[in-house]
Amino acid sequence: MKLTRYLPLVAAAALVPSLGMAQEAEEAANGIEAIEMLGMEMVFIFNTLLFLIGGFLVFFMAAGFCMLETGLVRSKNATMQLTKNVALFSLAAIAYYLVGFNLMYPLGDWVVEGWLGGVAPTVLEPVGVPFDELDDVEYASIGSDFFFQLMFCAAVASIVSGAVAERIKLFPFLIFVVFITGILYPIQASWSWGEGWLDELGFLDFAGSSIVHGAGGWAALAGAIVLGARYGKYGTDGRVNVMPGSNLPLATLGMFILWLGWFGFNGASQLAMGTVSDVADVSRIFANTNTAAAGGAVAALILSQLLYKKPDLTMVLNGALAGLVSITAEPLTPGLGMATLIGAVGGVIVVLTIPMLDKLKIDDVVGAIPVHLFAGIWGTLAVVLTNPDASIVNQIIGIVAIGAVMFFGSLILWLILKAVMGIRVGDEEQIAGLDTTELGMEAYPDFSKG
Amino acid sequence: MKLTRYLPLVAAAALVPSLGMAQEAEEAANGIEAIEMLGMEMVFIFNTLLFLIGGFLVFFMAAGFCMLETGLVRSKNATMQLTKNVALFSLAAIAYYLVGFNLMYPLGDWVVEGWLGGVAPTVLEPVGVPFDELDDVEYASIGSDFFFQLMFCAAVASIVSGAVAERIKLFPFLIFVVFITGILYPIQASWSWGEGWLDELGFLDFAGSSIVHGAGGWAALAGAIVLGARYGKYGTDGRVNVMPGSNLPLATLGMFILWLGWFGFNGASQLAMGTVSDVADVSRIFANTNTAAAGGAVAALILSQLLYKKPDLTMVLNGALAGLVSITAEPLTPGLGMATLIGAVGGVIVVLTIPMLDKLKIDDVVGAIPVHLFAGIWGTLAVVLTNPDASIVNQIIGIVAIGAVMFFGSLILWLILKAVMGIRVGDEEQIAGLDTTELGMEAYPDFSKG
Amino acid sequence: MKLTRYLPLVAAAALVPSLGMAQEAEEAANGIEAIEMLGMEMVFIFNTLLFLIGGFLVFFMAAGFCMLETGLVRSKNATMQLTKNVALFSLAAIAYYLVGFNLMYPLGDWVVEGWLGGVAPTVLEPVGVPFDELDDVEYASIGSDFFFQLMFCAAVASIVSGAVAERIKLFPFLIFVVFITGILYPIQASWSWGEGWLDELGFLDFAGSSIVHGAGGWAALAGAIVLGARYGKYGTDGRVNVMPGSNLPLATLGMFILWLGWFGFNGASQLAMGTVSDVADVSRIFANTNTAAAGGAVAALILSQLLYKKPDLTMVLNGALAGLVSITAEPLTPGLGMATLIGAVGGVIVVLTIPMLDKLKIDDVVGAIPVHLFAGIWGTLAVVLTNPDASIVNQIIGIVAIGAVMFFGSLILWLILKAVMGIRVGDEEQIAGLDTTELGMEAYPDFSKG
Repeated sequence: MKLTRYLPLVAAAALVPSLGMAQEAEEAANGIEAIEMLGMEMVFIFNTLLFLIGGFLVFFMAAGFCMLETGLVRSKNATMQLTKNVALFSLAAIAYYLVGFNLMYPLGDWVVEGWLGGVAPTVLEPVGVPFDELDDVEYASIGSDFFFQLMFCAAVASIVSGAVAERIKLFPFLIFVVFITGILYPIQASWSWGEGWLDELGFLDFAGSSIVHGAGGWAALAGAIVLGARYGKYGTDGRVNVMPGSNLPLATLGMFILWLGWFGFNGASQLAMGTVSDVADVSRIFANTNTAAAGGAVAALILSQLLYKKPDLTMVLNGALAGLVSITAEPLTPGLGMATLIGAVGGVIVVLTIPMLDKLKIDDVVGAIPVHLFAGIWGTLAVVLTNPDASIVNQIIGIVAIGAVMFFGSLILWLILKAVMGIRVGDEEQIAGLDTTELGMEAYPDFSKG
Repeated sequence: MKLTRYLPLVAAAALVPSLGMAQEAEEAANGIEAIEMLGMEMVFIFNTLLFLIGGFLVFFMAAGFCMLETGLVRSKNATMQLTKNVALFSLAAIAYYLVGFNLMYPLGDWVVEGWLGGVAPTVLEPVGVPFDELDDVEYASIGSDFFFQLMFCAAVASIVSGAVAERIKLFPFLIFVVFITGILYPIQASWSWGEGWLDELGFLDFAGSSIVHGAGGWAALAGAIVLGARYGKYGTDGRVNVMPGSNLPLATLGMFILWLGWFGFNGASQLAMGTVSDVADVSRIFANTNTAAAGGAVAALILSQLLYKKPDLTMVLNGALAGLVSITAEPLTPGLGMATLIGAVGGVIVVLTIPMLDKLKIDDVVGAIPVHLFAGIWGTLAVVLTNPDASIVNQIIGIVAIGAVMFFGSLILWLILKAVMGIRVGDEEQIAGLDTTELGMEAYPDFSKG
Repeated sequence: MKLTRYLPLVAAAALVPSLGMAQEAEEAANGIEAIEMLGMEMVFIFNTLLFLIGGFLVFFMAAGFCMLETGLVRSKNATMQLTKNVALFSLAAIAYYLVGFNLMYPLGDWVVEGWLGGVAPTVLEPVGVPFDELDDVEYASIGSDFFFQLMFCAAVASIVSGAVAERIKLFPFLIFVVFITGILYPIQASWSWGEGWLDELGFLDFAGSSIVHGAGGWAALAGAIVLGARYGKYGTDGRVNVMPGSNLPLATLGMFILWLGWFGFNGASQLAMGTVSDVADVSRIFANTNTAAAGGAVAALILSQLLYKKPDLTMVLNGALAGLVSITAEPLTPGLGMATLIGAVGGVIVVLTIPMLDKLKIDDVVGAIPVHLFAGIWGTLAVVLTNPDASIVNQIIGIVAIGAVMFFGSLILWLILKAVMGIRVGDEEQIAGLDTTELGMEAYPDFSKG
């Protein structure tokens, strides 16, 4: 940690000696140029800092998903859920570096114009890059952008892991993760955020209600269908067996970490904070994101009380998350009241659709599909409520297009994995628990089971 | 996440073409103006960023309180504690948006001058607000300010929930939360931070030893008195039954999260970091806040060893928190040594007063009253040790005034709630645990109880 | 939270009225000076902010270590592990303030030139320090620097606590902590980061693979040797008894928190972000740090599968951490591919060396020595792969010098503590668990033991 001292370029420029009295005009011109330069440097630094802060907050969401999911599975499958979450994040990081990032941001270099980018590993700006060699002086450093975008990509895989918990084999799941984080998500995301055809069309999804959360939800839905329900979840008599989460404090912690991370998720998706307008917009987004989560939690609390006569903590947790997903497509233009309502509708959707999935015998262990897909669709549609640039038709086209590629792409891959190596843990192994049968390591070995 | 590019206003100003040689004078003047403008923009952006970072750190304290409290209750009441904490934060967010924020910051628009502000929902600056339409160009964006202040308001409610744990009904508690976060706390806080009569008087409480922590502590004290002790806590023979916390790792995690959040709590209460003086002051505050916590923890460790012959982890956790509360009224002016001592005294107070409350048969489940109220009083008084602008008389007036409104206001509401709907869970339900009787959901269903 | 308004100095300078037309030249000169000044202020603010953000992230690593270690010990020793971690951080904060910081950064004021600094408590810049009284205008505020550096010092002690867990007495351990955080670590670190002889030599260790992690690892190794293995760990027949961690979700959470904190650890070790070059470098560091952790986790996952036929979560956790330690000596110059590989080698080292320690009957409860020492050595050597300024000879000299002082210094202290007051808890107390025998407080009292 030795100090290397840099003065900003502007200072260097300004230090050019100005000896003669006749140089006034030049000096004035120099001054103007120096101010411009300083202003541009400041914008670049602030934008980059926004990505770094946003990035570490969204990184922490990996821990949030991990704790939420591990708290909601039975203790006999907890080690597996932990292993899957650490591994999926790590593989996503590598896949996105090798393929995903450039596939998602072709920067005009499309293989199929507007639809398919090219494949190349990510290359960062060189060490100590000077001002005039920056890749995009009006934006932010490549490293910070890559770091931030990677975290979104990993979130897609985290969403899937919750839905298919407690009966999927580890390695087929991880192969699936590499595929969606390296290829499927980046291609689809390039359509909107890489300036592809959905962006041209006018589809609006600020931080990814559909592009990230819906995408994860569709992949999870395909997985849950191909995989089938956990052993014993649905009785032959149509009865749904409750399989309660083993560690609700852990699940609640996970929810809080996700809520925290969402400030980075939505806030840094403003992509800029180097002007007063941008930083004020980031502030709006922070406030709206928070209140939407609150709206979702309160709505789920009240509705679960009304429907079941008792407040349901897991519904409240999922309600808050659904509020967050709902506001993600447009966290900027609503006022606080509208943001609260958009979140509250998300909370209502979750409470109403979680039992619906059970009726369809689609076994989504943590409620990922209602939270990320159903509330994501709602959030994507809700953009039209406050953003005059949005059209309901374009929003629907975006939802359907993303849904089609993510659902069918995932479905095909799940089916291939099923055929080639099998994806489902056997019934007896499920009864014993994946931790002992697949991993030989219990999550809570000191505590006797109830 | 499509990029919209803004140059800062200054760059735009500087880009005005300067064609003629005769325009030197104007250019020079333009230059000076452009520098001024850039400087003001930078201050605004830095201040706003401070609130956003401080805000997300203090937000995370909601998780810290939740984990601390859930770790310190018995496992049969853990789901209830989780539910209360998620719900109280969410309700606080909505109440503070609808009423609290404007009540707390009347900005000269008092209903009763210096004592009572007006009621109106919070309105943020418009999307993409330009420089000359900012609400307060020398301060920060409304959105960031609201976001930050909201987190303080929610902390007040979090403090209460720990003290009244394990025997309060959910919905009466939540009604109480709406009342103190929407009305009581904001009115009281407006006296000091909204430029009301306590501020006029010269009462000094930098980040809220009394205004936030004391306020929560007084409300908790009123609640604990009205509610009565948990079933079985105090034997008829005067014996105090220990009811140990069920998950000390969780409680310790909660303490660490609170400690982390406190850097935002105290640091961002500087309200500015756009000058070298301000950012150096924020640095002082970070360092002092940290060392005060350390002082509190070490003092509690040593004192509990001396008094009880064994170090007591829960005392150490509460000692650290008491150190943090103690430094909160004046985290800027002390040096590191004095800050350590101020925190250490807080730790001593906690170790000595926790048993005292038990003698009074006031059942404070997590030690919230010693930590937040008693150490808060100490911290508020300790301002006079290092800040020459403080007077002990004014500090006492502030403590008493805040105590009066928060204690009696809360007391009345608790009594009304008790009379109207009942606030206490029955003894048999307490024995069975609130999770099964009130919520029908266990926090750790897989683990058999010891 | 009353607002005190500062304009930056530049604005004040620029506001000097410019009445006469003849003052053009002066104005132009004033303008240039004002720009320079504004630029310097911005650099100072950004650098200070980097330390504050980095500092709170590294602070949180104290919680990460605490959760990781508590999750990996048996439940009967969990309260002790929590107590040790809270206490060690608190004592480190005080020791580093009283002695360590100035010992580590003599700023030319050596007692023994390049080898030993002087002893004095830390003094921060005064409240509201003006620009021209800053300690180092081209660097950052003292408060932020102290805050950041303190966290590194505390990390050294956290590393030790994991290795010596489950059989060490509390107070001798805490005395050891005071010694290494106040004296031993700062002296050694001054050789490199305080511009001492290792820095003169050209030893390169960007954020402390050896200076922090290796240092902690050497102290831990000395401790583990002097202390001996836990009762029952190594059978007389040469059998190694597995003593599984009691709470793997907690351990995984700890790992994620450490990973998060590492962005501050490595990123803020750039020591500057006030220029585009610096902030782009910080971005590189964030991206490289992340991918090295991913590489370590994936390598450990695959290798544990190959060696043991089952993926091993604790290996994956330690693999990620080893990846982080490995990249810490040079997180800037590698590209993403090389960073991934450097991390992956770290993961391989951990998987291969954890059993090796058991063969030597060195009982390292959490794998701290492989993770922090062995991967730290690898990381320190790996600097030569990408940084042309590094020489393998100098790197080895640094590793050996740090190792010598930290290992033998620690060894002597451990032996003194053993002789004077005893450091090891008796076998029967170990069987019963340190929580009941040493502390009288169980971590999970509600849950029956398996």
